Amino acid sequence: MKCRVWAPRAERAELVFSPDGERIPMHKNARGHFEVDHERFVPGARYGFSLDGGPLRPDPRSHFQPEGVHGPSELTAFDAFTWTDSGFRQAPLAGAVVYELHVGTFSPEGSFDGVIPKLDYLRDLGVTHVELLPVAAFPGERGWGYDGVALFAPHAAYGGPTALRRLVDACHARGLGVILDVVYNHLGPSGNYLGQFGPYFTDRYGTPWGEAVNYDGAGSDEVRRFVCDNAEYWFRHFHVDGLRLDAVHAIFDQSALHILEQLSSEVDDLSLELERPLILIAESHLNDPRFVRPRSQGGLGLASQWSDDFHHALRSVLTGDRDAYYSDFGEIAHLAEALQHGFAYRGQYSQHRQHSYGRSPSGLAGRHFHVFCQNHDQIGNRAIGDRLGHRVNPGQQRIAAALTLLSPYVSMLFMGEEWGSKSPFLYFTDHSEPELAEAVRQGRRREFAAFGWDPERIPDPQAQSTFAASKLVWDELSEPEHQSLLSFYRALIQLRAREPSLASDALELTRVEYDEAERWLALLRGEVAVLVNFGSESCLVPRKPTALLDTSLKLLLVSDDRVQVTPDGVALPPHSVTVLAKGR
Amino acid sequence: MKCRVWAPRAERAELVFSPDGERIPMHKNARGHFEVDHERFVPGARYGFSLDGGPLRPDPRSHFQPEGVHGPSELTAFDAFTWTDSGFRQAPLAGAVVYELHVGTFSPEGSFDGVIPKLDYLRDLGVTHVELLPVAAFPGERGWGYDGVALFAPHAAYGGPTALRRLVDACHARGLGVILDVVYNHLGPSGNYLGQFGPYFTDRYGTPWGEAVNYDGAGSDEVRRFVCDNAEYWFRHFHVDGLRLDAVHAIFDQSALHILEQLSSEVDDLSLELERPLILIAESHLNDPRFVRPRSQGGLGLASQWSDDFHHALRSVLTGDRDAYYSDFGEIAHLAEALQHGFAYRGQYSQHRQHSYGRSPSGLAGRHFHVFCQNHDQIGNRAIGDRLGHRVNPGQQRIAAALTLLSPYVSMLFMGEEWGSKSPFLYFTDHSEPELAEAVRQGRRREFAAFGWDPERIPDPQAQSTFAASKLVWDELSEPEHQSLLSFYRALIQLRAREPSLASDALELTRVEYDEAERWLALLRGEVAVLVNFGSESCLVPRKPTALLDTSLKLLLVSDDRVQVTPDGVALPPHSVTVLAKGR
Repeated sequence: MKCRVWAPRAERAELVFSPDGERIPMHKNARGHFEVDHERFVPGARYGFSLDGGPLRPDPRSHFQPEGVHGPSELTAFDAFTWTDSGFRQAPLAGAVVYELHVGTFSPEGSFDGVIPKLDYLRDLGVTHVELLPVAAFPGERGWGYDGVALFAPHAAYGGPTALRRLVDACHARGLGVILDVVYNHLGPSGNYLGQFGPYFTDRYGTPWGEAVNYDGAGSDEVRRFVCDNAEYWFRHFHVDGLRLDAVHAIFDQSALHILEQLSSEVDDLSLELERPLILIAESHLNDPRFVRPRSQGGLGLASQWSDDFHHALRSVLTGDRDAYYSDFGEIAHLAEALQHGFAYRGQYSQHRQHSYGRSPSGLAGRHFHVFCQNHDQIGNRAIGDRLGHRVNPGQQRIAAALTLLSPYVSMLFMGEEWGSKSPFLYFTDHSEPELAEAVRQGRRREFAAFGWDPERIPDPQAQSTFAASKLVWDELSEPEHQSLLSFYRALIQLRAREPSLASDALELTRVEYDEAERWLALLRGEVAVLVNFGSESCLVPRKPTALLDTSLKLLLVSDDRVQVTPDGVALPPHSVTVLAKGR
Repeated sequence: MKCRVWAPRAERAELVFSPDGERIPMHKNARGHFEVDHERFVPGARYGFSLDGGPLRPDPRSHFQPEGVHGPSELTAFDAFTWTDSGFRQAPLAGAVVYELHVGTFSPEGSFDGVIPKLDYLRDLGVTHVELLPVAAFPGERGWGYDGVALFAPHAAYGGPTALRRLVDACHARGLGVILDVVYNHLGPSGNYLGQFGPYFTDRYGTPWGEAVNYDGAGSDEVRRFVCDNAEYWFRHFHVDGLRLDAVHAIFDQSALHILEQLSSEVDDLSLELERPLILIAESHLNDPRFVRPRSQGGLGLASQWSDDFHHALRSVLTGDRDAYYSDFGEIAHLAEALQHGFAYRGQYSQHRQHSYGRSPSGLAGRHFHVFCQNHDQIGNRAIGDRLGHRVNPGQQRIAAALTLLSPYVSMLFMGEEWGSKSPFLYFTDHSEPELAEAVRQGRRREFAAFGWDPERIPDPQAQSTFAASKLVWDELSEPEHQSLLSFYRALIQLRAREPSLASDALELTRVEYDEAERWLALLRGEVAVLVNFGSESCLVPRKPTALLDTSLKLLLVSDDRVQVTPDGVALPPHSVTVLAKGR
């Protein structure tokens, strides 16, 4: 088969087979691609490239790194897997419930195949999409995946490409869509050989995690091709339904055609070709509606973006947290803004950032925002990886769940939150270079020392035990408190799917009323009202000004059965949420 | 009067009067502004600020630096000048002819007042707008102005604020609009004290000329205010009609509301308030139509942008230049693209940049592009500052003029080009710091050594003689060859204004035909045809395929009267241009 690699900086390149080291000279074309056609280059072959006589380096577009990110690549056959999902189409984003999971800690096996036995459980929970933390090969066995370096190679410790195909096919068989988390803003610090091949990186911009990707400088056409081809690869050859684009605020591109607009345009074309919807979701800290506006309106044409504001507003009201970015939140007013508009900050001054940020997302709908009360970052980037459930009481947990799942937005859960998992989600790595390992360890300690943490209490990211402690303990599900929370989540998701008033994600059909002093908030969606008491005292939600409440009311779901509907309003017990509908 | 300065990093600030050094303590408010009300702070007062006991620094918003950029600021009165221009409204951009001039070298006096006696000449030439190279105070007396550091202070050596007001008023009295060149991407290397006052700059991005301006980090609200207030200042208090924004590709801003969109929005509001049109023009290397698209379509809402492509395409066809960025041009095809679309590169691969760039400006009109066959950069950034007229023959000069002035775009001339001035426009500076002076000198030599220039032949930027050599020599106008070219320019501008077919700037009404081998190009606008022979042999422009030529023809203007209209077409002498119209 034909073998091809872009290496414009190299004078010579050789295809090198492993383990015997046979070297095949390659031919360079005008645009810097080396090519050779060789009978040994067939599926199953292990190989790499030697540039200008240097050591073997893995293929930048490797399908599989069976011996790790530093070792040879293995060529795979795209047609060797028998797909059974031809009839599957993912659920629409409006109303979707996404379940974010980390393959290594979700199941005891810590692998793609380990996820499959739990899929019936996820389907019964009412989830519509499974979202996998990055699966592109990263250094070592354990890690979150954001240090990926072989962007086309499903991680070997998770089972590699065939196992990922089995997982996607199994999801589709149960009606579950699959979203992959992909990192296009930097590559990990170890095993990143791309810079030896070509100008993949630039020093014109910087990211907190490593060199910025070169999207607009010399050679950037091929870098953009690399990224767009990567997206196509997952959609076409792994049948995934969506990509979650990590930290798009760290993707810098001055081109007249922004890389994300190019990507969304190509993915839309691919969607037409494959005759199934394909979606792109941005993680962004910029509160910029441009990411999800249509390209015809000057937008970048992505399907949806994360709203960190929703999380921060909700958590700070529940927990009283005010450190770091939570200092910009804390009032029910912030939460009301996020519930009503997707973003709380739409141009207002941020005390934490010390500048105004964001912009009105007028004209957008609920499907354009992903909201969550927990996610991998908001748990795992805490010093001891504690979940929301470690900090708040059961009533507050149910408030968080109800506002997330009954909002007009795409709702995302983090694995185990639905039963109040007691496992932390810690930061763990498996770097083989001692210096890098120590730098990560000390960096983590320093980061939290700034918040007054005793460095000795910060779990060692490199320890096997840190990884092990982060695994979900499925046996918890047999305990009543966990079963009770799970039932509440199920009921919420069923309500979301069943109630006609919750079907539309038009934000103009959503109203929010609240009383900061009395600590209540009412989320009003058509005939359905979600009434929340954030306070530790009982409170009364008056029938006015909530016009919805001017009629007979029916309880749909309560977190605390002491709730009382009276002629004056609805009396809510402390830390409780009640869902009602107009009587019918 | 009240005195105010933003200095969030300072603990203390004092208002310091000059020359006696009286110090008045100021009061700090919550957002980092120091304020004080003092009887001595009245127009005419010379003053500065001392931060935390440090030396006197000029006011970042100084109106005037009478003793240079390192000295005290002088407060001026906005209402002391008697304006006589209440009835003036600038000409529309469609059809406009802009005359770019450098105040220091345009007249013998080298001052704002020195420009005034030449305004009748410019009016008679047919110019609609005068564009001044930057006038904000820069180090020393001589310079292009792109090293400005006191962005609100008209340069003292040019005559300061009152003289600038006299010049603008005198332009308006003659029906001439005034455009100021302003630099919002960096500040000059000497006399730049802004960083001592606040976070005006950032290291998250870089520019080739100095630190990037902080438009999206902590403290950026005030930096954006500084820039937007600066624009308002020139419009409101100096009555200018437009701003030319230097190198917007070096303005970095990730905010959801880009600083240029904020600026254009504020300027549009000001235009409504002042009841006269105000325009913003971008210099950009990005070929990105977004700058000039309406804000409602996701654009930044600027009025127009420069097209370097037009210049590069035209020059390379005329001169055969192929070095550096000219390597991307050289065929008549490139020029045809630029004439038809404003940009030649609209997504194509650039060999010089080594990546694709640009984007189709579909839907835009001629007024959205500024074109020119010479400008300060394209002359002054050449090793010996030679003008186009130094390189090409009179016929070719007339071709360049005709294609620039009869294009559907805003046409810009560089001072003196209209008579074929023999003065070079050299790079000159007047730095008082010996190290900086030497660095500029050596930098200039190094830059051109890379193109094979003998360093000894590169004029010394610091020499008074380099500046003096760059002055226009108005006596040249008495010579026949110069008078002849000037008459041709006048005739072109009159045609532009008079011919109904040239009135519309709709690009779909423009057609371009050419024959690369025969070296001719036809620019067809309604009933008017501009026929060019780039070659050194005579050529025949056939009646087909230029549908315009299927009727009787009338000569409107010829650069060479040997032109012949025949039944087969139009026979053009070498290096000539002919303008015809359908017979009437």
